[in-house]
Amino acid sequence: MIAHILSIGAELTEGRVVNTNATFLAQQTQQLGIGVSRITTIGDDIQEITELLSAQKDTVVITTGGLGPTHDDITHEALYAFCHKNFDDFLEKDEWYCIIKKYAKNREISSVHAHAQLLKNPVGHAPGFYVEANGCHIFVLPGVPSEAEGMFQEEVLPLLKKMAQKYHSHTLRLSGMYESKVQKILEKIQGRSQVDISLLPQYNGVDIVVKSRNEINAFVDEARAQLQKYIYSENGSSLEETIAKLLIDQKKTIAVAESCSGGFTTHLLTNVSGSSAYLQYAVVSYSNEAKIKILGVDPQTITAHGAVSPECAREMAQGVRKVMGTDIGIATTGISGPTGATPNKPLGLVYVAYADSDHCVVRDKVIRRPRVEHKKHSAYFVLNLLWERLKK
Amino acid sequence: MIAHILSIGAELTEGRVVNTNATFLAQQTQQLGIGVSRITTIGDDIQEITELLSAQKDTVVITTGGLGPTHDDITHEALYAFCHKNFDDFLEKDEWYCIIKKYAKNREISSVHAHAQLLKNPVGHAPGFYVEANGCHIFVLPGVPSEAEGMFQEEVLPLLKKMAQKYHSHTLRLSGMYESKVQKILEKIQGRSQVDISLLPQYNGVDIVVKSRNEINAFVDEARAQLQKYIYSENGSSLEETIAKLLIDQKKTIAVAESCSGGFTTHLLTNVSGSSAYLQYAVVSYSNEAKIKILGVDPQTITAHGAVSPECAREMAQGVRKVMGTDIGIATTGISGPTGATPNKPLGLVYVAYADSDHCVVRDKVIRRPRVEHKKHSAYFVLNLLWERLKK
Repeated sequence: MIAHILSIGAELTEGRVVNTNATFLAQQTQQLGIGVSRITTIGDDIQEITELLSAQKDTVVITTGGLGPTHDDITHEALYAFCHKNFDDFLEKDEWYCIIKKYAKNREISSVHAHAQLLKNPVGHAPGFYVEANGCHIFVLPGVPSEAEGMFQEEVLPLLKKMAQKYHSHTLRLSGMYESKVQKILEKIQGRSQVDISLLPQYNGVDIVVKSRNEINAFVDEARAQLQKYIYSENGSSLEETIAKLLIDQKKTIAVAESCSGGFTTHLLTNVSGSSAYLQYAVVSYSNEAKIKILGVDPQTITAHGAVSPECAREMAQGVRKVMGTDIGIATTGISGPTGATPNKPLGLVYVAYADSDHCVVRDKVIRRPRVEHKKHSAYFVLNLLWERLKK
Repeated sequence: MIAHILSIGAELTEGRVVNTNATFLAQQTQQLGIGVSRITTIGDDIQEITELLSAQKDTVVITTGGLGPTHDDITHEALYAFCHKNFDDFLEKDEWYCIIKKYAKNREISSVHAHAQLLKNPVGHAPGFYVEANGCHIFVLPGVPSEAEGMFQEEVLPLLKKMAQKYHSHTLRLSGMYESKVQKILEKIQGRSQVDISLLPQYNGVDIVVKSRNEINAFVDEARAQLQKYIYSENGSSLEETIAKLLIDQKKTIAVAESCSGGFTTHLLTNVSGSSAYLQYAVVSYSNEAKIKILGVDPQTITAHGAVSPECAREMAQGVRKVMGTDIGIATTGISGPTGATPNKPLGLVYVAYADSDHCVVRDKVIRRPRVEHKKHSAYFVLNLLWERLKK
C-alpha cells in the first residue's frame, strides 16, 4: 500500500511556511510500512484539489490544510464536490455544512455518511474527514501542525494500523551514535535481508526503524543487544522526555549554564511539560563577567585557559549547581561562529560538562556547522552527556 | 509566469529531511513576481521525473536533488532522456557525461548544447543545468541546501531576473500588528487595485510584500506613512537583528529573565552573530526560589500576587538588570500549559516587562497556543516591547 500526501495552502506555495506536516506524515506512514510515492503541494484551488483527489487509485491520500474558517480555506468545498461526484446518495451541501456546524457544538457526532466520517480535532475546532472511494482511503486534516499531528495520532493512526495490520514495525532511538556506524553494525546482524530498515538522522543521533511483513523480534532483539547503551527510547519519546523521566524518577534537580548554545539547551528542557519540577534555573552567561560573577568561575581560569576551555566548562557546571544547590549542573562553552576562532581553537569547537556531588565530566567536539545549527548541536551534545550520566 | 518546483529524493518522501529547499525557492521566485503553482516531491525514479518534466508547459521548472554521485541519484539520467527526446540534434549519452566530467576539472565550461547549459556550483562539485524546451525554463539544482541556495543565488537568479525584468517588489516587516488590521488599512490606500499584496504572518507580526509590473513607490510610501510605527525592517532583517543594531548603535547592554518563554527569548537574541557585545547574561528562573535568590524578587510579591503577575514581571526585569548592572532588563512570566491555570489566571496568560534606569513597562496578553508555540509567542511578545522602547 502506498500513500500520496497532498499539502494545501498558499502559505506553502508562497514559501511563508516550511512544510513540516508532510515530513511528519511521511515518517509516520513509513513506520507503518506504507511508503509515500509523492507529496504534492498546491495553493487553495478547489478545482485542482478535486482533480487531484479524483486522479488517485488504490492509495492512502492524506491532505492537510484549507479547513479553517477564512474565505480561502476551500478543502471543504473540494471534498464536498468529490464526495458528491462519487456517491450517488450523498448529502446536499446544506446538510453537509449543518453536520459540520453541529460537530463544533457536540463532539460526539462522527459519521456524516456511509462513506464519510468526521475525524475529531483534539487540539482545535475544525473537524477532519475520512472518505473511502475508488479503493482510496482519503484523510483530510487541518493545516496547523499541532492540529494535524494531534488528529493523526488519535484518529488516523488507529485506522491506518488496521489497514497495515500485517506489517510489523519497531523504532529504536539512539543518542551519541551516528548513521554510518549504525549501518555497519546492522549489516552484520543475521536476518538483515529479511527486514526493511530506515535510518533517520537526528541532531542527537539516529532513529532506526525496522519493518517487515514477517516477524521482526529476533532482529530487533539482536540490534538492541548490540546497541543497548545508545538506545534512549523505544516508545517514541524524545531525548528531553527521557531525561525528564529519569530526573523525576531519581528525584533530582538540575541547573544549566550555557554559553555557546545560547539558551537552546534550556529551551529543549522546558519544552517538556512539568519541567519546573526538576529544572531549578538556567543561566546564559555570554560574558566573562557573568561567568565569574554569577557562576563563580575563577578569573584565573579564564585568563590561563580562555572561556572556551575544558577548565571553564567544568567550573561553569560546578558553579551553576552550587548557586541554587541543585543535584546536577550542566554547561556548554564553545565557538558558534562565524567569528571567534583562534589558531589553537578552531571554529565549531565546543566543550560540555556535567557535574554532580561526586563527579565532573567534560567532553569536547568540533561541530562544523553554521551558527544556529552549531547552537542546536551543542545543546544536544550536553543533553547526551546528561542522559548518559543519569542512566548509569 | 508561474513556477513548478520539483523536489527529488527518497530522503524527502521517507520523511528523513524537511523540504526547506522548496520553501527557499518559493520565497525567492515569489519575490520576483513568479508565483509557484505547485511543489511536487517524489523519490529517485527516472520515469516519473522524465514524465513530470515532459508534462510542463510554459513554466519555470526548478528541480532539486538527485545530482550526486550515488547510484540512486538519477536526475542526470532523467534530464538526459528529456533532452534527447526534445532536441533532435542532442548529444549522445557518452558525450553528455564527458562534458559533465570535464566541468569537474575545468569550471570554465558552461555550455553543453544550444538548448542546455551548465550551472556552476559555488559550494560543491556537481554542476546544475539550465534547459529551455516547450516554452519551459528548466533549472536543475543539487539537493544539499547550501549548494541549492548558492547555485540559485549566483546562477539562476540572474537568468530569472531577466525573465521577470519589469516586476517591482518591496517588503515591509511589521511587529506588534496583525494580519486582519493591516488588511483593513491597506484596503483604503489609493492604488490598492494596481498592486499585488501578500501578507505573510510571522510570530511577531506580519510581512507585507507589495508587487506589480507597474510603479509601486507611491503605494509603498503611503503604506509606510500609515504603518510607520510598526515597521522594523525594509531590508529583510529579522526583529532580533533590528534589535541588535539598535543596541549596538545606542551602546546599551541587556540582561534577560525568562520564566514562561523558557530560554527561547535568549535563543533568538543569541542567533545573531556578535550578540555577546550587548547580551551580558540571561536567567531562566523557573522556580520561585530562583526568582527570589538570583533576581531579587520580593517573596512577599510572589505570596501576594503570584509568580505570574505584573508585579513579579516588573521585579524580574528590574532585578535582572541590577545583578549585572546592564542598561536594560527584560522579563517574561506566564502559563505555557498544559497545566498551571487557576480560576483567575487563564491558560496562556503572559506578562512581559522592560526596565531601564528611568522606566519600567509591563504588558499582558493571553496567548491560546500549545506549550511550545506559547513559549515562542511569549518570546516575540517581549522582543516587540524591547524594540518599541529602543526606537523611542
